[in-house]
Amino acid sequence: MTIRKAAAIGGGVIGAGWVARLVLNGIDVALYDPDPEASRKVEEVMAGARRAYEKMATEGLPAEGTITYAKTIAEAVTGADFIQESVPERLDIKHKVLAEIDAHAPADAVIGSSTSGIKPSDMQPALKRPERLVVGHPFNPVYLLPLVEIVGGEKTTKKFIDKARELYASIGMKPVVIRKEIEAFVGDRLLEAAWREALWLIKDGICTVEELDDIMRYSFGLRWAQMGMFQVYRIAGGEAGMRHFMAQFGPCLTWPWTKLMNVPEFNDELVDLIAGQSDEQSAKWSIRELEQIRDDNLIAIYEGLAKQNGGQGWGAGELHKDYVKQLGKGASISAAAAKARATKPKKVAKA
Amino acid sequence: MTIRKAAAIGGGVIGAGWVARLVLNGIDVALYDPDPEASRKVEEVMAGARRAYEKMATEGLPAEGTITYAKTIAEAVTGADFIQESVPERLDIKHKVLAEIDAHAPADAVIGSSTSGIKPSDMQPALKRPERLVVGHPFNPVYLLPLVEIVGGEKTTKKFIDKARELYASIGMKPVVIRKEIEAFVGDRLLEAAWREALWLIKDGICTVEELDDIMRYSFGLRWAQMGMFQVYRIAGGEAGMRHFMAQFGPCLTWPWTKLMNVPEFNDELVDLIAGQSDEQSAKWSIRELEQIRDDNLIAIYEGLAKQNGGQGWGAGELHKDYVKQLGKGASISAAAAKARATKPKKVAKA
Repeated sequence: MTIRKAAAIGGGVIGAGWVARLVLNGIDVALYDPDPEASRKVEEVMAGARRAYEKMATEGLPAEGTITYAKTIAEAVTGADFIQESVPERLDIKHKVLAEIDAHAPADAVIGSSTSGIKPSDMQPALKRPERLVVGHPFNPVYLLPLVEIVGGEKTTKKFIDKARELYASIGMKPVVIRKEIEAFVGDRLLEAAWREALWLIKDGICTVEELDDIMRYSFGLRWAQMGMFQVYRIAGGEAGMRHFMAQFGPCLTWPWTKLMNVPEFNDELVDLIAGQSDEQSAKWSIRELEQIRDDNLIAIYEGLAKQNGGQGWGAGELHKDYVKQLGKGASISAAAAKARATKPKKVAKA
Repeated sequence: MTIRKAAAIGGGVIGAGWVARLVLNGIDVALYDPDPEASRKVEEVMAGARRAYEKMATEGLPAEGTITYAKTIAEAVTGADFIQESVPERLDIKHKVLAEIDAHAPADAVIGSSTSGIKPSDMQPALKRPERLVVGHPFNPVYLLPLVEIVGGEKTTKKFIDKARELYASIGMKPVVIRKEIEAFVGDRLLEAAWREALWLIKDGICTVEELDDIMRYSFGLRWAQMGMFQVYRIAGGEAGMRHFMAQFGPCLTWPWTKLMNVPEFNDELVDLIAGQSDEQSAKWSIRELEQIRDDNLIAIYEGLAKQNGGQGWGAGELHKDYVKQLGKGASISAAAAKARATKPKKVAKA
């Protein structure tokens, strides 16, 4: 199953990341975003994503899909079989936007929400056809990071969970279906735990943001790019395995090894401290430069992992191998279509 | 400054990892471990590490140092300029072992402790010369992961912190000096926070260990192999920067986004659940196979990152480039020494 026509509602960093992934997969996207600057912002993300895909897609790329800037949600979602909502994280806004999408989208379209934290069941009351609403929670940069957490609400049907999984996978992603809905799902729960602890560490002057970043990227970050914590700890347990590991480290749970019984007060002083240290670490690069460095690094990691596991690829590397092949297949199949498309303008001006 | 003769006290997974890193850097190591199986276990780790280094060291390797199995701590540390302690995580054992090391080690030797959590100030009362004790906390696999957290106690002098930093760097590591000592330092604080949250997620049936691992390695693990969380979030803040990011996500701190106000009860049921799911995920590989997969993946990531940043390398990749060069330099400089060494037995039998 593939996406024929997509709609994106909201064109911020995440929304534009979705647009980029879709368009670079050769899919036409209609975008609705009331921001008068939307097309400029989306084109900036597109430029970065295009650069990354040209580097990554060693077997070719399909002809780019078109981006249409729609004037209304109704106009954007009409005829779409896949709609991704990426509007601000406020339940009242989500309700308003989702009701509008629901009223005009084809009945069998999948509606995915990019929310980082809101439970789908809390959004479903806004929809007359709530069975097709899923959370499809991506990670920035959406065009390069493969994970999408799929979360169904009380009224989501298995049919639409399965359909969502297929559609996300068809654009090179790694869908993981979360078994029970909770706020913030799984990825952001883990990120939030680490973030809270990190704020304490900076606030208490144990380390600077640069030192903390180095501690991550020279140790467990390298582990987690290829194996998650459970597989890593299984190895740490040695031949005695996971049980041994847990027996050894279980007691730490009662030791004062985190500050997580509490959260740091979020005040100007903390913001200044962290923003100042962040400038010291990174102000030498523009955000655009940092994005390019990050994207190049990610592609290098994918390519390294793609050669592992006896040439089959490992983890994100295995997925990357398949994705590159798929993008290349698109390129050859659509040779004629690409030619036809090349005569169309790449970017349709705001209607 | 380089290490002339090293001593390792304790030859478990971590201790043997230190032995491997030292020996593969061409340094002779005297090991003390009362376990009658110590030499077999160390040789197993050595075999894995040797395999990894042969793969990684594209510019050659120095002649391997020798391993001497000492009968006493006194025998192991005599004449050593660098001693690494990796005995079990109990303060009484640390005290006993460190007192013995202290009594027999040269006065200017650096004593590093591999402890994951104990504060150096809590260990220093056991030493007559506490100024040279630092925590040098590594990450498994010690021979491949570069990070070492250096933590000084109340009585550690700057001279020895600097010396420790130089010695660890001389064997290809990335030392980060922690500014204030706290239990579990920085890396394990972050790991413990994520681990506690992960236990809740599994216990509550939100996901399985394999799903959680996939969520990590297809998203933020890929980020953190090359940039830490603060640099990543700086990018997420866009041109508005870190201040904008914090303003946007600060409020989440008061939302119920983690279970970290509490810790899950550590009982047989939880151990069974996790160990069972871990078997489903990984029992198809032996621990040895998993180690090789992990090591190959790490080397592939290093090599990918070594080509970034205009060829200068980025993060662990930049360090890798230097390390490979350094190992190769050792190989050519010590051509004569290597020949001489080749006539000595590689592994000195237990004395």
